[in-house]
Amino acid sequence: MPQNRYNLDWKVGYTSDPSIRPEKMVSASVPGAVQLDWARAEGWPHFWQDGDFGRYAWMEKVYWVYEAALPRLEGLEGERLFFVSGGIDYRFLVRVGERTLFAQEGMFSPVEIDLTEIAQPGEKIEVVIFPIPDSGLGEGRVEASSSVKPAVSYGWDFHPRLVPSGIWRLTYLELRKPTHIRELYFDYVVEEDLALVKLDLSIELSQASVGVFEWSLVGPDGEVVDGEAINLQGQSLVDGFCEVHEPELWWPRGYGEQSLYRLSVSLHDDEGLMLDSRSEAIGFRTSKLVMNEGAWDETPEMPKTRSVAPMALEVNGRRIFVKGSNWVAPDVFPGVAGEDAYRPLLEKAASCHFNLLRCWGGAAIGKPSFFELCDRLGLMVWQDFPLACNKYAESPEFLDTLGQEATAIVKQLKPHPSVMIWCGGNELYNSWSGMTDQSKAIRLLNKVCLELDPDTPFLPTSPIMGAGHGGYLFRDSRGKECYEVFQNARNSAYVEFGIPAPASAEKLRNLIPESDLFPPKPGGVWELRHGFRAWEMDKESWLCMPTVEHYFGRPESIEELVEWGQLLQAEGLKGIYEEARRQKPYCSMAINWCFNEPWPAAANNSLVSWPCEAKPALRAVRQSCRPTLASARVKRFSWKAGELFEAELWMLHDGPNAVKGDRVEAYLRFGDDESFVLGWYFDALEDGENRVGPVLRFVVPEMHEQTFKLILRVEGRPDWNSEYDFCYRQD
Amino acid sequence: MPQNRYNLDWKVGYTSDPSIRPEKMVSASVPGAVQLDWARAEGWPHFWQDGDFGRYAWMEKVYWVYEAALPRLEGLEGERLFFVSGGIDYRFLVRVGERTLFAQEGMFSPVEIDLTEIAQPGEKIEVVIFPIPDSGLGEGRVEASSSVKPAVSYGWDFHPRLVPSGIWRLTYLELRKPTHIRELYFDYVVEEDLALVKLDLSIELSQASVGVFEWSLVGPDGEVVDGEAINLQGQSLVDGFCEVHEPELWWPRGYGEQSLYRLSVSLHDDEGLMLDSRSEAIGFRTSKLVMNEGAWDETPEMPKTRSVAPMALEVNGRRIFVKGSNWVAPDVFPGVAGEDAYRPLLEKAASCHFNLLRCWGGAAIGKPSFFELCDRLGLMVWQDFPLACNKYAESPEFLDTLGQEATAIVKQLKPHPSVMIWCGGNELYNSWSGMTDQSKAIRLLNKVCLELDPDTPFLPTSPIMGAGHGGYLFRDSRGKECYEVFQNARNSAYVEFGIPAPASAEKLRNLIPESDLFPPKPGGVWELRHGFRAWEMDKESWLCMPTVEHYFGRPESIEELVEWGQLLQAEGLKGIYEEARRQKPYCSMAINWCFNEPWPAAANNSLVSWPCEAKPALRAVRQSCRPTLASARVKRFSWKAGELFEAELWMLHDGPNAVKGDRVEAYLRFGDDESFVLGWYFDALEDGENRVGPVLRFVVPEMHEQTFKLILRVEGRPDWNSEYDFCYRQD
Repeated sequence: MPQNRYNLDWKVGYTSDPSIRPEKMVSASVPGAVQLDWARAEGWPHFWQDGDFGRYAWMEKVYWVYEAALPRLEGLEGERLFFVSGGIDYRFLVRVGERTLFAQEGMFSPVEIDLTEIAQPGEKIEVVIFPIPDSGLGEGRVEASSSVKPAVSYGWDFHPRLVPSGIWRLTYLELRKPTHIRELYFDYVVEEDLALVKLDLSIELSQASVGVFEWSLVGPDGEVVDGEAINLQGQSLVDGFCEVHEPELWWPRGYGEQSLYRLSVSLHDDEGLMLDSRSEAIGFRTSKLVMNEGAWDETPEMPKTRSVAPMALEVNGRRIFVKGSNWVAPDVFPGVAGEDAYRPLLEKAASCHFNLLRCWGGAAIGKPSFFELCDRLGLMVWQDFPLACNKYAESPEFLDTLGQEATAIVKQLKPHPSVMIWCGGNELYNSWSGMTDQSKAIRLLNKVCLELDPDTPFLPTSPIMGAGHGGYLFRDSRGKECYEVFQNARNSAYVEFGIPAPASAEKLRNLIPESDLFPPKPGGVWELRHGFRAWEMDKESWLCMPTVEHYFGRPESIEELVEWGQLLQAEGLKGIYEEARRQKPYCSMAINWCFNEPWPAAANNSLVSWPCEAKPALRAVRQSCRPTLASARVKRFSWKAGELFEAELWMLHDGPNAVKGDRVEAYLRFGDDESFVLGWYFDALEDGENRVGPVLRFVVPEMHEQTFKLILRVEGRPDWNSEYDFCYRQD
Repeated sequence: MPQNRYNLDWKVGYTSDPSIRPEKMVSASVPGAVQLDWARAEGWPHFWQDGDFGRYAWMEKVYWVYEAALPRLEGLEGERLFFVSGGIDYRFLVRVGERTLFAQEGMFSPVEIDLTEIAQPGEKIEVVIFPIPDSGLGEGRVEASSSVKPAVSYGWDFHPRLVPSGIWRLTYLELRKPTHIRELYFDYVVEEDLALVKLDLSIELSQASVGVFEWSLVGPDGEVVDGEAINLQGQSLVDGFCEVHEPELWWPRGYGEQSLYRLSVSLHDDEGLMLDSRSEAIGFRTSKLVMNEGAWDETPEMPKTRSVAPMALEVNGRRIFVKGSNWVAPDVFPGVAGEDAYRPLLEKAASCHFNLLRCWGGAAIGKPSFFELCDRLGLMVWQDFPLACNKYAESPEFLDTLGQEATAIVKQLKPHPSVMIWCGGNELYNSWSGMTDQSKAIRLLNKVCLELDPDTPFLPTSPIMGAGHGGYLFRDSRGKECYEVFQNARNSAYVEFGIPAPASAEKLRNLIPESDLFPPKPGGVWELRHGFRAWEMDKESWLCMPTVEHYFGRPESIEELVEWGQLLQAEGLKGIYEEARRQKPYCSMAINWCFNEPWPAAANNSLVSWPCEAKPALRAVRQSCRPTLASARVKRFSWKAGELFEAELWMLHDGPNAVKGDRVEAYLRFGDDESFVLGWYFDALEDGENRVGPVLRFVVPEMHEQTFKLILRVEGRPDWNSEYDFCYRQD
């Protein structure tokens, strides 16, 4: 923490009337959430340990009052004291004594209050949090439909009903010189040929000033690109401009370096004393959503409607096949999730050869460290605004809040080169939400993005015309397997698809008492842990016991259930990721639902159990997302003796390099018995080129095992080898 | 013309360099176009009389200079002299002597220049028109792709290449008091229950002022609703507010009255002298595009994309089935088309039971009298911005111009209750245009509309997802008739569909020399008149001689060709309009291509030949758009002896009233022989309810005639009777 910042010693309590002092105040951890503070004071275990989140329900309906005494600070003379908060969740006011200094609805707009002439040392500053927002239209996510509060908190198929409140972002006092930097803003254009960047910067000072303003831009290798010292003549706005020739661009993971420049600015008085300074990393890149290849093809039939919407991401003039995952909140309480939570998760995502995360609209926007890590790891971010699965209000009050919050979000995130796509929110143009192109909330978000970040694409929602969400099962209610579903689909992008799996047996033993552990039953702890009845459309999910039983028979232990369930997730996701890649170039994205989870769910579509425990599917997805691999397209998972097994061989290859041709050998393994089936020599693959090969066929023999393997080996390139498991069914 | 306005006596000439005076100046008609002035001076016939529009080509490349001497005006003392123009086409500057007073790109933004201290009587004011805008990307409509110039002028399948230039809107000098009204702006909200309107008005004065400002609102029956006299205390902005209880709403034709209130404002100095006044008609209505009935139904299949976009128009809380037509420019030169051209055309449109015109984006925006007539006639307007069939530029310069022009257009048209839908332009999201949801031009138009007229729906383009454009032929290249095409289509709205027909024989005789008249041949006058090769996709159109010959054999005279061609248009359009109505409520609109035409085309999809001559199809469409009618759904047009003719009987009924049940009798007429086939008693129809009836069947007998008729008679309601013609083929 910089020397001029001071933490406050917060306490928190609740009251039914904000004019009445809470009866009891407990120690508060800031940033955090009032729920966690109260639970700590009461000695409750974490809600996910006892699974009893119902005991938090009353906390939604009361006012929470944070209070802290203002300290006596040294060297205050001639300086100004600010109360600064990155975000307070959700509706709140800040007061000192009887004086309300600030009031806001919205958790994403930062707060800055100049306390200098207002508050004295020893006085108490209070932050009063209002009851959680509630549209009054029903129970569950619809309660969030007239606010910019993440809807997931109101309960979801992977998230308990637990609605955080409180100070959730860094909050502190700060001493500033009377003349300080209020805002540093930059914008740049990468010229068409990528050989020149034009960078504009503008700085707003707290007041008209004399003195010297300096800025410098330092390149990725430490060389100074440009800089300037500007004599201030009493202005409060300062502009700078520089050209970066032959810039080192920021590239997504797998396509080049994540080059970052550093912009440093400092403000000095006329005696040379530094008054304030700022420093920002800048990555230069372009981002466009262009038409998918083949998507302009028109049928001759009339009447004809419009063409599908573009979903092919072009960065720095190059089309990127997007491999990624949906990122959800890494914790039920966003206030406690920070860099320590983000880093291991993001490193796991990067290890999967992912190049993009879609930050799903049901959740809160990440903290700065999330985007800094993405910048460094080359993980592109598709950022939904925090709207999901609701028909959001049209009232002027809501639209004002949405405009304010969206403006704050875009301003905070725009400087990050990783933020490649803005999106209005999740599934808003589907029946279960009920919004349309005419909804003012979406039109407003389009306007805000056009005004503040016009060169980053804006999607009104996801899915848009031509892109697809779902499915979320290995085998659907009609008996269709994910293999068949995706091999018959033709979407411009698969931006949500999932296969659920249980958490590890070890985790389940920690979550579920031994007496309830096996066999899992609805109605009890398993249901509380979202193993059952989590998904309204299919009461059975996400544990999918009938599916496991369909392929492997009734499991005899929790270990067996977990093993088979996790195998289905791993094999199913391999099938989908690789099929999406085979459908390139018409298909441009493969993004599964979902990467992580905000609490330990008994079963879920996530690749990683909370907090950061990989399921076997993570390794499978890592295999399927390698830049280059041998791949097999197989129509289904389970086979019987005497059936003709078929696999179409492919080489999958993503940019940006060409690779030499080589020989693929296909083997089948039943138990310990491995036999060679087919060899295929493929010629060199160009940058981003897939190649389809021969179809291998064999008659499935009788066997004793429940599974068998197809193994593809690439001579001299074991890193391109692949393996697939299939189920052998006796019946 | 008000007493304080003065026309100027304009001359015009051309020059290759605007700093060099034109060699020759000729008398100019303002508003008009330089082409027409020059042609008049040269004694050329109208271009459509000799068909030689090529002789105008050079005019595109030069500068045109209008000049007029400023008159010596009486009573100028203490008053200010303004140069006012409603619009100058396209890029221009205004100068007096060497001084450039104003420069603009864009023909839709009005011009006001205070000449008072600048120009002396006798000095010349000049308007310099630049060469026509040209993107430099090719020939034809693509030339218009970096300007807000109507693309149709660059040549279309119904429009010659002739690009107007010059002063096209009312232009005059005006004396104003130093304190005058600069802008009168109003906005209103109709409350949900339609029982209350809240009207805000705001007036911007030319300068801070004392005195009295008065406003009054008078109801449709002349009663004063509210009013106020406001003492000005030195302000330049004045606001007013009033509530209208139990307002008489403005309804589209067929659904109620077109009630108009009148808002009058006046400005007086502190001695009571009136300084300025304005008066505006106001109609109160709501407009929404809501989801088509059934459009939220989701298939269970995954992956699933978004639902279609809403196309059901809801006015004052009531869903309106839209029956209408595409309105194109009524003249190649918009400067000469005014109320005299609009009125007879709009009255014809109204007589067809149309309730909406889509003002197509290829053409110029109409003049005020167009919208005033639509307000009065209850003809709703869907207004495209003037973009069509191009990939419009992304450059800041173009976007600036587009933003300026769109702002001017919305401000001018928003006060008209008839203007129900904004639309970005024509077919922009189709392959032949190449724009997408990411195009900045469309995102900008959405923003402008949201800011200035948020309660009127905005479509990014037409067609949007689910709506359909085309077909445009009675029988397409695969032999499919329009009956089959539309009976198998399922679109949320049919917003462009057409059947072409030749102009009347009399008109053709006027246009085409006797020697070329019959049989029509490509390559000569017929082609120049767009009888042939107008449509790139099908070189034969719009005369469709092979289609006529397919049904009726080779015509032996121009009269026969015209008769058969016009019959196909009439019957085909009946079939489509009535099929669209049968597909209600999922289908919400039936809008044919097109109503009128800008010059006399030999053959075209229009219902009316230029200037205002109805084709037989107009009467047919009038039949099919009656609020209530008996209707027959027949699979095809031509029948042979021995085939089983089938017709499904329907009663079609649009709101807003219920009607009693009655008996429909179906008759067949072969020559003079009429026979009763079927009777059907239908029960009362509710507001907006269609009813399907029985299917009549009969074996087609041998006959001598080329056509036969199906006649539906409704007992006691001859105004609901219908007739359909069919072709009898010998082969």
